[in-house]
Amino acid sequence: MIGKFKTHIRTAGLIGKYRSPDVAESLPQMAAFLHERGVRVIIEESTAASIGASEYEIGGYETLGADADVAIVLGGDGTLLFAARRLAEYGVPLVGVNQGRLGFMTDIARHDMLIGVERLLAGKFSVESRVLLEAEVWREDERVFRNLALNDVVVNKGDIGRLIEMKVEVDGVFLYLLRADGMIVCTPTGSTAYALSANGPILHPRVQGIAIVPLCPHALSNRPITISDESRIDITLVSPSEGRVHFDGQARFDARAGDCVRISSAGVRVTLLHPPGYDYFAMLREKLHWSEMPEP
Amino acid sequence: MIGKFKTHIRTAGLIGKYRSPDVAESLPQMAAFLHERGVRVIIEESTAASIGASEYEIGGYETLGADADVAIVLGGDGTLLFAARRLAEYGVPLVGVNQGRLGFMTDIARHDMLIGVERLLAGKFSVESRVLLEAEVWREDERVFRNLALNDVVVNKGDIGRLIEMKVEVDGVFLYLLRADGMIVCTPTGSTAYALSANGPILHPRVQGIAIVPLCPHALSNRPITISDESRIDITLVSPSEGRVHFDGQARFDARAGDCVRISSAGVRVTLLHPPGYDYFAMLREKLHWSEMPEP
Amino acid sequence: MIGKFKTHIRTAGLIGKYRSPDVAESLPQMAAFLHERGVRVIIEESTAASIGASEYEIGGYETLGADADVAIVLGGDGTLLFAARRLAEYGVPLVGVNQGRLGFMTDIARHDMLIGVERLLAGKFSVESRVLLEAEVWREDERVFRNLALNDVVVNKGDIGRLIEMKVEVDGVFLYLLRADGMIVCTPTGSTAYALSANGPILHPRVQGIAIVPLCPHALSNRPITISDESRIDITLVSPSEGRVHFDGQARFDARAGDCVRISSAGVRVTLLHPPGYDYFAMLREKLHWSEMPEP
Amino acid sequence: MIGKFKTHIRTAGLIGKYRSPDVAESLPQMAAFLHERGVRVIIEESTAASIGASEYEIGGYETLGADADVAIVLGGDGTLLFAARRLAEYGVPLVGVNQGRLGFMTDIARHDMLIGVERLLAGKFSVESRVLLEAEVWREDERVFRNLALNDVVVNKGDIGRLIEMKVEVDGVFLYLLRADGMIVCTPTGSTAYALSANGPILHPRVQGIAIVPLCPHALSNRPITISDESRIDITLVSPSEGRVHFDGQARFDARAGDCVRISSAGVRVTLLHPPGYDYFAMLREKLHWSEMPEP
Repeated sequence: MIGKFKTHIRTAGLIGKYRSPDVAESLPQMAAFLHERGVRVIIEESTAASIGASEYEIGGYETLGADADVAIVLGGDGTLLFAARRLAEYGVPLVGVNQGRLGFMTDIARHDMLIGVERLLAGKFSVESRVLLEAEVWREDERVFRNLALNDVVVNKGDIGRLIEMKVEVDGVFLYLLRADGMIVCTPTGSTAYALSANGPILHPRVQGIAIVPLCPHALSNRPITISDESRIDITLVSPSEGRVHFDGQARFDARAGDCVRISSAGVRVTLLHPPGYDYFAMLREKLHWSEMPEP
Repeated sequence: MIGKFKTHIRTAGLIGKYRSPDVAESLPQMAAFLHERGVRVIIEESTAASIGASEYEIGGYETLGADADVAIVLGGDGTLLFAARRLAEYGVPLVGVNQGRLGFMTDIARHDMLIGVERLLAGKFSVESRVLLEAEVWREDERVFRNLALNDVVVNKGDIGRLIEMKVEVDGVFLYLLRADGMIVCTPTGSTAYALSANGPILHPRVQGIAIVPLCPHALSNRPITISDESRIDITLVSPSEGRVHFDGQARFDARAGDCVRISSAGVRVTLLHPPGYDYFAMLREKLHWSEMPEP
Repeated sequence: MIGKFKTHIRTAGLIGKYRSPDVAESLPQMAAFLHERGVRVIIEESTAASIGASEYEIGGYETLGADADVAIVLGGDGTLLFAARRLAEYGVPLVGVNQGRLGFMTDIARHDMLIGVERLLAGKFSVESRVLLEAEVWREDERVFRNLALNDVVVNKGDIGRLIEMKVEVDGVFLYLLRADGMIVCTPTGSTAYALSANGPILHPRVQGIAIVPLCPHALSNRPITISDESRIDITLVSPSEGRVHFDGQARFDARAGDCVRISSAGVRVTLLHPPGYDYFAMLREKLHWSEMPEP
Repeated sequence: MIGKFKTHIRTAGLIGKYRSPDVAESLPQMAAFLHERGVRVIIEESTAASIGASEYEIGGYETLGADADVAIVLGGDGTLLFAARRLAEYGVPLVGVNQGRLGFMTDIARHDMLIGVERLLAGKFSVESRVLLEAEVWREDERVFRNLALNDVVVNKGDIGRLIEMKVEVDGVFLYLLRADGMIVCTPTGSTAYALSANGPILHPRVQGIAIVPLCPHALSNRPITISDESRIDITLVSPSEGRVHFDGQARFDARAGDCVRISSAGVRVTLLHPPGYDYFAMLREKLHWSEMPEP
């Protein structure tokens, strides 16, 4: 058992992609299926509001956090990212059911979802733990913002449209001063997301590292670097640069010149449950078209 | 204490770059300095032969392995790589004195070497442990070659001058089939060496990962991937491809079609001793010209 | 003779970096030097306003365009870019005097400026012609914006902070549909500017090509492509994507979903005058630290 | 009309992939089809030998060069590269029929070949001219080798397995000194071949440029550069580096330390005939999987 995952599931939280007609159709099927098998079902409240009235129990993330043995997320990777950040402090494991093509984390197809959940109830799932980032924005001696990220923390130029200058330190040791469009700090989970399009490295989820990936760096010799996930990264906006800090592309904060964005592993982790036969590399190949070679 | 490193050094092995006039000059100074301070000095035998007669004890790597509390390497990173592989099984910690500009691992400058050793004898050094790779070549059910590498194991096309086709598996799970000029599998130590010129990721030595970096892959969507250093990588030469396997660019083996190169962390590690104030990032900046930005 | 460049210079326009104390000091020296040699001097009017009262003739870009045989720009590459776009339609050749380190185009150092201009008056300069881009924004059947760019036209996500989706066509033929942070279309001149930090190709100014360089493309197999500078590029913002269009990073236009940015070579070109001994590759090496190799 | 291409084809040369069973089957069909339409058919002699006895006229490349109005190549891009280099001096246009998947240059599918040739005889083809490289190896004052390349000239380390050091000059002007695994100099045609796997730029065939693309350069700030195809490139092997020079991967020459490889556009060009509807970008997309995006 990793985190709060129990082999015997008594209560399941259901979370759906916001305002998705597909979810409005599949979520009640999932709820009914669980209910028939004696599992207590709690629908996350904004999901419930989004898909209309429901005959099941409704609860906020706090309730899910307190009571659910598992959170079943119906949507795409974005929905799962959001739910993971909200539930992180409670340690509730997550399962993702994708409404369209499979995602990196939502690895049960909708048409297989009932079989997948049947197996879940029978304990036939593998358990994986993913690191979360915690980022704080410090202004002089005050912490003015704090949030979590499962994929990445991005500091970019926001709407100012110019290079920003950043000082980067690792565990208090100077790394470099850089002018760039921005900086991505990502987990292994996020290494196949935005950072990959900025030439970041792919890190297998078992690698305990954090990648520092500049966006369009104004220095040809710059390269991404991966450091231990026990390290702390400080990114200071060098005056007069201002920037915007993004958390998984879902939350953001406008930082001022001189602000320091302090990033480290969060004290909590995210637990993902995968169906039997889950294969990270197969997912990569499918997503990245890895095995497809140009013809000679 | 990590590995065999002792705070109190009674015996030091001296290893020098082969046929280097600089080493022929600085090594006797080092030996005399140690001898005056009551340290038993053993000169590695091929070093002794290369720099001419010596008044000090001479011994092979086995003797150094058995008796030396530290091996002091005078040369460049290449000399240290060689010595590290030879001494790996004995756990003797290494210190590198560079004759020219500082190397990634030979981080004491020649003009500072006596001060550096003075501090070493006083226990004023930091200790760092680096992972080593072990690679075996399997031909059907027989292991036909085995060697260690501190930087990288490279499988390339040797002198045949054509693409080779390789099947890559991680812990027995299929990763991809790739046609390329070759493949680099590197440690964090090797991530700043050859792999970096092939667009590999920079991995801080504390990251417990191994990078898989293709050389001129015949697939645009290919990207290097970093996996846990507890994983095993199998690279099979798909018939009719033949290849050459290189260990730190210093030892090599000609592999046939069908041969499988099996790479994993070695059971032993290398211990490096660094002078006070050692700064990995400063070394990177100096070597990679990281802080130098083009002017606007 | 290329463009309007005359061996015998009778009238020189002087343009300076906006509100630069350095320019306020060096521009009057330049003016006096020219005046003493019988050259009519016209100070560009916003430059004149920025550096305070002047004893010389003052004129707008129209006057410079009509009367000047050469425009001498005191500032950095940014100042020269601005002046080049303003003077493009008049064909006035430009010379750049850099106040700090040499730029890619401002290749006379301030401390050499009087010698440089002396040589210019003596006809000892090489003449180089650079292509300009013209970009129009079309909304349905109406052209809603038009501007020139000597470096690049960039379509990016502006302040919306999300991927934009673009359809790209070349001479009316479909190239690809791409989700990315944006797209850079650059001239050879611009290939060493912003595009280079996005992994664009370096194009020597004599190559008659335009590079199409995606910013963080959401497709691993994407690569920049260089096409003939006689081709036309249409970038259409696929609904609901909105974007911002930038011209040399100096002018901008907010484009709506469905807008098409049409880019082609402008009918006019920019003429640059270089001092004797001008060496494009030396400039590249100095700017890009090309000859600096990491030590082995 | 470009090169020797005539709208009215009286004589066709047929060239096939060496020892290909597919060609042995399709070539006689092609010959019979042409013969029936009154076209004189000449089978290239090594092709004839490779596919067995033939009832048609047999001739060497000299005969094809002298008499053929078109050369029809049955094979892959490799076969077409070979034929193009052999026929270059005669100006015979080439058409490529691919036996498997379409190539970059062999753009008629085998199952469409008779329709394609029918259209060719009717003059329904577009004509495209491609630049060829000419490379000479100079040893002191003597030219010791010369060959042509349609894709690329590659200087690499051959079987020595170590970095080579090269001095690169363009039109006699120093570009840089580089230690690398090698250097690719490619045409636009070759920009989608080997150079692309070494991060070279894609150049549309109408761009009159030559790309200089280092293989694993030992300098992080190095980037490929594209120069005018009117320029001459000199690559000198700096002692003690030796290297091997490859022409389209098909011919090679072992160069010694101090040898200079001099590369420029050849005096002749290659004419390719394309079927109606030929679309370079569609070919790129298909080959490079350009339009395939990872799912969000």
